[in-house]
Amino acid sequence: MPISAINYGASSSSDSGASAAHDPANRPGDGNSSADDPYAHDDAHDDAHDELDLLGDDPLQPDLSSPFSFKRKQKPRHITGFLSRPARLISALASPFASRASHDIPPPAQRLGSLPTHPHDNDTHPGASGPGAGPDYHAEGPGRRVAYEDLTAIDWIFEYTKERQRQRALHHHTTPHRTSSPSSSSPPPPPPPPTPPTSQSSTLPALLSHIRRLLDASQVWVVLILSGLAVGALAAAIDVATDWLGDIKHGFCSPSVDGGRFYLSKTACCYGYDDEAICAGWTTWGEAFAGRRGGGGAGLWVVEGATYLVLGVTFAVAAAVLVREFAVYARHSGIPELKTVLGGFIMKRFLGVWTLVTKSLGLVLAVASGMWLGKEGPLVHVACCCANLFIKLFPSINNNEARKREVLSAAAASGISVAFGSPIGGVLFSLEQLSYYFPDKTMWQSFVCAMTAAMVLQAFDPFRSGKLVLYQVTYSSSWHGFELFPFIILGILGGIYGGLFIKANMRVAKWRKSASWLPGPVVQVAVVACLTALINYPNHYMRAQNSDLVSNLFSECSQTLDDRFGLCHEGAASAGTIILLLFAAVLAFFLAAITFGLQIPAGIILPTMAIGALTGRAVGIIMEIWQRNHPAFIAFRSCEPDIPCITPGTYAIIGAAAALAGVTRMTVSIVVIMFELTGALTYVLPIMVAVMLSKWVGDAFSRRGIYESWIRFNEYPFLDLSEETTPIPDMPASQIMTRIDDLVVLTAAGHTVASLAAILDAHPHRGFPVISDPRDAILLGYISRAELAYTLHAATRPPRALPPETEAFFAHQPLADPRSTLDLRPWMDQTPLTLPSRCRLHLAVSYFQKLGLRYVLFVDRGVLQGLLTKKDVWYVLNGAEETRRTSGMQEGEGLGAGATAPPGFWSYVTGPRRRPLSQLAGYRSL
Amino acid sequence: MPISAINYGASSSSDSGASAAHDPANRPGDGNSSADDPYAHDDAHDDAHDELDLLGDDPLQPDLSSPFSFKRKQKPRHITGFLSRPARLISALASPFASRASHDIPPPAQRLGSLPTHPHDNDTHPGASGPGAGPDYHAEGPGRRVAYEDLTAIDWIFEYTKERQRQRALHHHTTPHRTSSPSSSSPPPPPPPPTPPTSQSSTLPALLSHIRRLLDASQVWVVLILSGLAVGALAAAIDVATDWLGDIKHGFCSPSVDGGRFYLSKTACCYGYDDEAICAGWTTWGEAFAGRRGGGGAGLWVVEGATYLVLGVTFAVAAAVLVREFAVYARHSGIPELKTVLGGFIMKRFLGVWTLVTKSLGLVLAVASGMWLGKEGPLVHVACCCANLFIKLFPSINNNEARKREVLSAAAASGISVAFGSPIGGVLFSLEQLSYYFPDKTMWQSFVCAMTAAMVLQAFDPFRSGKLVLYQVTYSSSWHGFELFPFIILGILGGIYGGLFIKANMRVAKWRKSASWLPGPVVQVAVVACLTALINYPNHYMRAQNSDLVSNLFSECSQTLDDRFGLCHEGAASAGTIILLLFAAVLAFFLAAITFGLQIPAGIILPTMAIGALTGRAVGIIMEIWQRNHPAFIAFRSCEPDIPCITPGTYAIIGAAAALAGVTRMTVSIVVIMFELTGALTYVLPIMVAVMLSKWVGDAFSRRGIYESWIRFNEYPFLDLSEETTPIPDMPASQIMTRIDDLVVLTAAGHTVASLAAILDAHPHRGFPVISDPRDAILLGYISRAELAYTLHAATRPPRALPPETEAFFAHQPLADPRSTLDLRPWMDQTPLTLPSRCRLHLAVSYFQKLGLRYVLFVDRGVLQGLLTKKDVWYVLNGAEETRRTSGMQEGEGLGAGATAPPGFWSYVTGPRRRPLSQLAGYRSL
Repeated sequence: MPISAINYGASSSSDSGASAAHDPANRPGDGNSSADDPYAHDDAHDDAHDELDLLGDDPLQPDLSSPFSFKRKQKPRHITGFLSRPARLISALASPFASRASHDIPPPAQRLGSLPTHPHDNDTHPGASGPGAGPDYHAEGPGRRVAYEDLTAIDWIFEYTKERQRQRALHHHTTPHRTSSPSSSSPPPPPPPPTPPTSQSSTLPALLSHIRRLLDASQVWVVLILSGLAVGALAAAIDVATDWLGDIKHGFCSPSVDGGRFYLSKTACCYGYDDEAICAGWTTWGEAFAGRRGGGGAGLWVVEGATYLVLGVTFAVAAAVLVREFAVYARHSGIPELKTVLGGFIMKRFLGVWTLVTKSLGLVLAVASGMWLGKEGPLVHVACCCANLFIKLFPSINNNEARKREVLSAAAASGISVAFGSPIGGVLFSLEQLSYYFPDKTMWQSFVCAMTAAMVLQAFDPFRSGKLVLYQVTYSSSWHGFELFPFIILGILGGIYGGLFIKANMRVAKWRKSASWLPGPVVQVAVVACLTALINYPNHYMRAQNSDLVSNLFSECSQTLDDRFGLCHEGAASAGTIILLLFAAVLAFFLAAITFGLQIPAGIILPTMAIGALTGRAVGIIMEIWQRNHPAFIAFRSCEPDIPCITPGTYAIIGAAAALAGVTRMTVSIVVIMFELTGALTYVLPIMVAVMLSKWVGDAFSRRGIYESWIRFNEYPFLDLSEETTPIPDMPASQIMTRIDDLVVLTAAGHTVASLAAILDAHPHRGFPVISDPRDAILLGYISRAELAYTLHAATRPPRALPPETEAFFAHQPLADPRSTLDLRPWMDQTPLTLPSRCRLHLAVSYFQKLGLRYVLFVDRGVLQGLLTKKDVWYVLNGAEETRRTSGMQEGEGLGAGATAPPGFWSYVTGPRRRPLSQLAGYRSL
Repeated sequence: MPISAINYGASSSSDSGASAAHDPANRPGDGNSSADDPYAHDDAHDDAHDELDLLGDDPLQPDLSSPFSFKRKQKPRHITGFLSRPARLISALASPFASRASHDIPPPAQRLGSLPTHPHDNDTHPGASGPGAGPDYHAEGPGRRVAYEDLTAIDWIFEYTKERQRQRALHHHTTPHRTSSPSSSSPPPPPPPPTPPTSQSSTLPALLSHIRRLLDASQVWVVLILSGLAVGALAAAIDVATDWLGDIKHGFCSPSVDGGRFYLSKTACCYGYDDEAICAGWTTWGEAFAGRRGGGGAGLWVVEGATYLVLGVTFAVAAAVLVREFAVYARHSGIPELKTVLGGFIMKRFLGVWTLVTKSLGLVLAVASGMWLGKEGPLVHVACCCANLFIKLFPSINNNEARKREVLSAAAASGISVAFGSPIGGVLFSLEQLSYYFPDKTMWQSFVCAMTAAMVLQAFDPFRSGKLVLYQVTYSSSWHGFELFPFIILGILGGIYGGLFIKANMRVAKWRKSASWLPGPVVQVAVVACLTALINYPNHYMRAQNSDLVSNLFSECSQTLDDRFGLCHEGAASAGTIILLLFAAVLAFFLAAITFGLQIPAGIILPTMAIGALTGRAVGIIMEIWQRNHPAFIAFRSCEPDIPCITPGTYAIIGAAAALAGVTRMTVSIVVIMFELTGALTYVLPIMVAVMLSKWVGDAFSRRGIYESWIRFNEYPFLDLSEETTPIPDMPASQIMTRIDDLVVLTAAGHTVASLAAILDAHPHRGFPVISDPRDAILLGYISRAELAYTLHAATRPPRALPPETEAFFAHQPLADPRSTLDLRPWMDQTPLTLPSRCRLHLAVSYFQKLGLRYVLFVDRGVLQGLLTKKDVWYVLNGAEETRRTSGMQEGEGLGAGATAPPGFWSYVTGPRRRPLSQLAGYRSL
């Protein structure tokens, strides 16, 4: 009958048969270990009920009735337990650390040490674990944790448990030691719904506690409002600086003219002039070098072009150097990384101060360089960096990774809010694109943050036009029914563009990674910047800043004051214009495809909108010419005679929306952003139709948008919530899980500090399930590598300084002297979540997605069957996708290319599954 | 050693000690039961490994490696298993139902019967359960189900499993019997990531399957677009009809005048007249009775008042009679019920056709009656009824309660969209207020549905003004910094109003329920309608329709054409106006509080907005007077001289937003709705501030908004997702769960059909956990009352017609003859989700909330500890809230008042927890 011997017999000798542990004579006379153990799970199949009185309470075991009898008898048992340990209660009352003291406390010298070597901070015995207990979150089961390592996944459940415990401490600050008073030790009424812990009788402490909670709740608001203010101010500064630097490439505001200042942009310099062409203060570089005003000439053109080129390349290189020197995470748009972080992954320094500074400065330089990149996506990253900065002011948020992510999700909205002047669009962007957990209250917080930022930007008014964004427009005319047809074409074009762009961009990225002969990132940036300048300068539409271009493409001719691109003058509606627009779109496509992915801050939203707007405007001009030449055509009958029937600007905005939908695969956010840009419901229907078609066509190319493609390319461990992008293969979870025969599992007892250290050395796995004994494999818990390593390290150092041969165990050992043994239970997740092994993979995936787990254990009737980690799931989902696409390919083949992924990704998992590792590590008894 | 005898020894005799089942000589020679059983969980603690070969495969056991050995040996075992049952494989190949045939199939006569009495449709043996298997969802574990009863909770996991199986069948329609081919019977590579099921080699079937899936996916869109069209049209019809009926109370469009038609509303009748007062066609009742035009006189006033009263009461009574006679669910706003339904509860007929018709007609009558009620909330209900109507066209959605709820969540947005002309607001309303599960794709679907409805409404243009809503406004001026102060006051007032209104309304509701002497609902409606008419008629502001009033209160004086309330004429800014406005607000408060809850279709949104607008306008006029009289006051310095500095209309809209936030506790949706009503970002900041303050102040009164209060009042089983409204008490789940000693549990074997029927008769519980045997209590599964009752009933009728003494069991019985015994496993949830009993209540609640469970079982190391149902959780959450509020009160005391809750609510739960029921039902052996 080996079952009854599970965790008593393995005390450093082999567990042969029933041990002597049940013999009361064996119990040591140590006062500290006066605990009894009715730890029923070990004896669940033992019908020697009469032995129970000899075993005491296990302090880590909650108040369960004995599971091996259906007679209700917990009441007398509780009382017996209570009466049988008066010494413990007295010591508990005498100590100021009463609620943290337990009956097997280590000697005071050990307790005072910085290492939390005493096995548990709180006694969860029935009655003693009252609701007013202190911060004893590890007693809930998930165990104690050391800080997360970089590039590991967070445990949402653990973080929320921590937060709850903190809240509880806040609520009950006035009665912190209530749990140890003897009056509360009486057992609760057996079938409980107990009185909840929140009733306070005295009013003053209640008021104080109320105020404390209010202050606590207001922290999130302070962070978000400060972030909103900072983001609005930063966005304004970036707008002004970009404007100035962008104009500097063409000329400067001459200080010699009245009111002229070198630091003024062209718009500011020429403020008051209706036509910027005759502005007195603004001097182009050609004029400055040639020493004369006005006129043209090839020489001037070359001089100005050379300045444009040199300055553009200089700005780009400066941005690249900033990124390389100060914060590598400032590169790129940041949205793929942000999605991963919000999905529950630790990336240290990604939201740091240096990243914030570098990204802001680098963004100004990169945008000013004239390359085909935007500031919209990076602004979201900047917004999250700001929020993270303010989060640091409040440890209660800063120390909780889950709450931090809630606040960051909310703050992300302010980035899009200032980028497009669209606060609602920002909230929906965060909801649709970025966030993982987005509770209702986050939506409101997000909205407030986004509005604050938009208001601040409006107060700064960086464009001196009252507009939040350069390309905000209002249309005076509505659309006609027949125009739905070209709008549908634009939608389809947008989808095709999106699909092709993602393919091209990813191919460039892969090539760049594989081509080892390529020069360093800064040189790459210089080359692309040079190429961009060479292509941009001669091209009428591409020479200007993207936002200027988009603004002019969007605008209605009747409202355009400054027609610098000649889109509205007489004869602009010609085949030549159309060809030039489409030519610019094609060139921009290639430039954007090689630019997005360089090591500079660079977004993809604005270039995409520009390309879409160029195409849309071209289609609009085609329609305009057609309508003008054939006004009698049946479709054009609805046009009123002497009024322009077609507004090409509306085609541009619909083209931009369609292109954006094709590239990012967002839907609602894009429509809402465009709605807020145009300020009227009029064009929502065509935008909606175009966006929907674009998404459908794009999805036919690939299910992943540009951000998801980059997540996949970088092998970020992001578990997509939507089944659309990542279909879950339909199979039993047992086919995926690492079976127990392939796992390194630990037995409950029979270890020494040295043997555990040896296991850690021998196996790279990130965690170990703990089972009762090798034959029964009853699951007891799960201990992560980090916690195990930390405890072992701490135990062998002073103050404990345990020798390597010290016995270590994961289950209650009534014979063990706590001074000379190591109880690892406080560091073990004693209530790991389990599933039956015959459940489907879908259910397991929804556990990971909805509950935010890191691992789930498969258990059939108490017996461990296997383990599934977040990585396994990620691997299966992505591998499945790959094989679905290139059917016949070996699974996993497509996953090897992730060279940019920092080493250590997935480092929290149990280890490579295919390695034929020894299955018996830790089984000294076999 | 009783453990090894768990489920073999209890075959209708007492399970004393080890049974004879392990004796190979005991096995019958029956060919059908040639199965072997390595059903490891039963023998997990049995070290008699050598006996294994004698026991065959259990067909319901998935491909797990044997859990009692860590040596990798499943490969040889699989092969042995494969070779040892050639007869089975041959029969499988021979039968066209191969994948559904199992080795213990009942005789064909039984299989052909309509009752699915054969125990399992699919064989899940290793290899045989390939990914391409047919619709065998019950094999995944949750078991087969009969249809949900009315007023029970749905099982989200089960529904999504069903949907997945349907999808899988769609994908693999071309190779449905792949699973039974011998080649796939070879075991998968041991540590698997298997090739996913989606790779299709031939292109034509792939194309067909692709088209089939596209058609399948388009069903949702068809439903939503049809719903959008219908909702838009219905809303337009309701608007026109309400307008006409409302005007009929005052007069009629005289057919004697040129172009006059009796069916025209006043606006339509007077179309073309600038001032409606001099409209020729419109005849008031006074004029009609007195036979003369124009003029006043007390007699005329009385005659018109009497007509107003009689018609108003008639309309209201008609609405009440409609509701009583045709659809009782058409009463009230419908939003509390809708929340409950979307949260996963079955309410038959709540979304039926009769409800749709009754609610639409009743709404017209109720709104026209002039009572203080709105059509906004009911329109959401109408929208969901429309969607439900179209859902019936597509069985694949209609038969899946989870998908149906996704579509309904999406469709709900169209209701708010047409009510406020605010499609984005509608989506956010659905997201914030209504929905439980709202995946990303639902947001887009919701948006499309809402936009379609808004477009249709715009096309109908029911108000002939181009506006979607009567009270859409545009402000020409902006606000000044000092105005934030009155806006803050309005926010606080809104919160106070909201808190008081909810209290008053709930008190009226409770009184109405408790006062048994009250007349029937129709008489109540008549009395309230009469009272309303008597109060409304003499009051200048209250006589008109609410929407007219709100429209005039919102509007800016400089843009008002028709100042019928005299708010803009010279001298309107007087103390008299202020008093009249506030007086109207107070009267309206009481009328609305007694009206909301009557048995007629009635929303609370518009009355609330009207009350808020009345107050807001009053505050605006106060500010206006103050600024006019003291233009030199320091705060007013920012006012420009000759322009009106204060726009009282903006105060009205902010007051309305604040009142709405106070009553409903929504935030984002209200701001977005108001933003869409005003069409500019200008007033978003003050609205935001007012809404936020109002919510905070309101939350100080009670955490629940009006809809949540009604949900609670009616005791609907809605599990709130937000922790803010329902704090979860911090306690171990084991304190809440029904312990095993209080449960009625069934053993795996030892039952007869008659004994099970007797248990069903004796205990009202809605489900029974199934355990191995009374001493070990290893959890095997859970069977619901409905399924158990159905199976027992079916088994005793032809074609099976089993006698009552037939043996029935829940575990594999190698000795049982399937023809003469009843295997209940297919109807049992064989993989019920479990938690360790020491986990905290929070974790259990997140299981219910995030995974959508109906019950969770607590298991420690395989041993059943207890059960927690959704009802228990609901009970604890609501009881805890109650005790927190009225601290000291016995928990549950506040829950007894639910007399309006239909009988049978919570009927799916395991039964009342406090009843001292026999614990031993079903234990024939004890």
